[in-house]
Amino acid sequence: MIKVFGHFSPDTDSTGSPLIWAWYLNTIEERPAEAVLLGPCNTEARFALTHWGFDTPATMSDLPAGTDVVIVDTNNPAELPTGINEANILAIIDHHKLVGGLETKAPIDITIRPLACTATIMHQLIGPDMAKAPRGIKGMMLSCILSDTLEFRSPTTTETDRMVAQALAEELGVDIPELAAQMFAAKSDVSAFSEKELLLMDAKKFEIGGKTLRISVLETTAPAQILSRKDALLAAIPEVAAEDGADAILLFIVDILKEEATLLLPDDLVKQVAAASFGADTSGDAVVLPGIMSRKKQIIPVLAL
Amino acid sequence: MIKVFGHFSPDTDSTGSPLIWAWYLNTIEERPAEAVLLGPCNTEARFALTHWGFDTPATMSDLPAGTDVVIVDTNNPAELPTGINEANILAIIDHHKLVGGLETKAPIDITIRPLACTATIMHQLIGPDMAKAPRGIKGMMLSCILSDTLEFRSPTTTETDRMVAQALAEELGVDIPELAAQMFAAKSDVSAFSEKELLLMDAKKFEIGGKTLRISVLETTAPAQILSRKDALLAAIPEVAAEDGADAILLFIVDILKEEATLLLPDDLVKQVAAASFGADTSGDAVVLPGIMSRKKQIIPVLAL
Repeated sequence: MIKVFGHFSPDTDSTGSPLIWAWYLNTIEERPAEAVLLGPCNTEARFALTHWGFDTPATMSDLPAGTDVVIVDTNNPAELPTGINEANILAIIDHHKLVGGLETKAPIDITIRPLACTATIMHQLIGPDMAKAPRGIKGMMLSCILSDTLEFRSPTTTETDRMVAQALAEELGVDIPELAAQMFAAKSDVSAFSEKELLLMDAKKFEIGGKTLRISVLETTAPAQILSRKDALLAAIPEVAAEDGADAILLFIVDILKEEATLLLPDDLVKQVAAASFGADTSGDAVVLPGIMSRKKQIIPVLAL
Repeated sequence: MIKVFGHFSPDTDSTGSPLIWAWYLNTIEERPAEAVLLGPCNTEARFALTHWGFDTPATMSDLPAGTDVVIVDTNNPAELPTGINEANILAIIDHHKLVGGLETKAPIDITIRPLACTATIMHQLIGPDMAKAPRGIKGMMLSCILSDTLEFRSPTTTETDRMVAQALAEELGVDIPELAAQMFAAKSDVSAFSEKELLLMDAKKFEIGGKTLRISVLETTAPAQILSRKDALLAAIPEVAAEDGADAILLFIVDILKEEATLLLPDDLVKQVAAASFGADTSGDAVVLPGIMSRKKQIIPVLAL
């Protein structure tokens, strides 16, 4: 049984794309496959699962050497189980920069494209067989694209993502603004989470200038809900960073509708990074960064110390 | 100007695929691109260039940081210029196992497929635009496939490689056995090369058990021409290995027609590897390995100390 999974802290694309590809492997290629998660998925992904009629995939707790796996939505060993290179990696489908570190024992299928969403790449790879996809698979594809593009607002959005999403919505009779609003509302309801959970919910580690930075992003249509907890978040950061093995945590609260991010400034290292990367005013304990929505496109490429 | 290149010691695929992709970028994508070589190509590639009417691409001597590049037929930094990660890598098209080590600054197009030949992958990527390709591009594609599959004899050959090659041959009115025989004769004529040149002509470095092994392959339809120089090759190996920074050189002389390889046994380390990897009788100064034709499929996967 092939295990298909995305990265730790699964968002909608890392929850939905494994389901899409497991469907493709099972139905079109007739190879038994199962979508799994590497941890609890976020509230938007949970909404999408329910909305499109999927059970929540099982969480994979360990990865025995030699397991057949397909990796989607990442190529970063740091976002994958320890021992990933001892698995039998059959394929990688991703839309992130190549970070190096994954190795395969033989030539395999690797498809990385500079598109906003893994599901868009899968739509291309599946091609005419998309006609055989059930409503749930097409709907999950649409949700993945709306999630990763923030309903086409993110600068990662390409014409291909937009065209695939619009064609799917038309075929399914889905109103895109309505579905996106429901998804973003689900993602924005973070009242159930502790400060620690918020800080690590959508968080990726990067090394820069000898420092390990945890770059955390919370996309929301209700930033006030998170910002009302600013003091508690600031207070929690040192301990969470220490447990996490990070020198600093940069928490970006992305306001999807206003198309801006608020970056918390808990300590001198974060202030230094904020000033060097964004020329930000670091006199307060938070700073608004107009237009910043994409970690991949607007944060990681400019990170500096 | 985008530079398109394959690996050091260019063979036919690493010479022809850059020409094919540069044509595609220039003509179909209308992005100025130029095929370049990372050193003198082998005699088979030289034959294919002449046969299909191409000038020998320029050899790239240095790679300034930020140069736009497309890498084909390798994803291994050890087979590419120092500083490759400081170039602006736009795309990678390859058919080797992922070794890790290449990094990109942003998401790019990466297409790796378990096919025998890079040119076959390009045929798939170019799709219906192949109709616009001139005879020389189609012919070079055919030559790349016949070279990498050893006219479909290599176990790396897939049904896709075979179908693409046969369709191209039919369209071009080319007799495959005749073209392959000309190519292999060109590759087999190594009389002009020194022992050192022969040892490094088609050679890739691998690390195993703390040892650096140079795995060298000479594919030939005239093995006697090389084996008549066995004593001189054995004598040259220690000095060439030392210059090369390798602990050992394993020279496999692949007899394309008999479908077997002769491995030279210059020293105890090579004998140890030969015994551990192939269960070979290492009592002499060379051993015949029946059926062994592919470094990728039959040598690298079994390498042991």
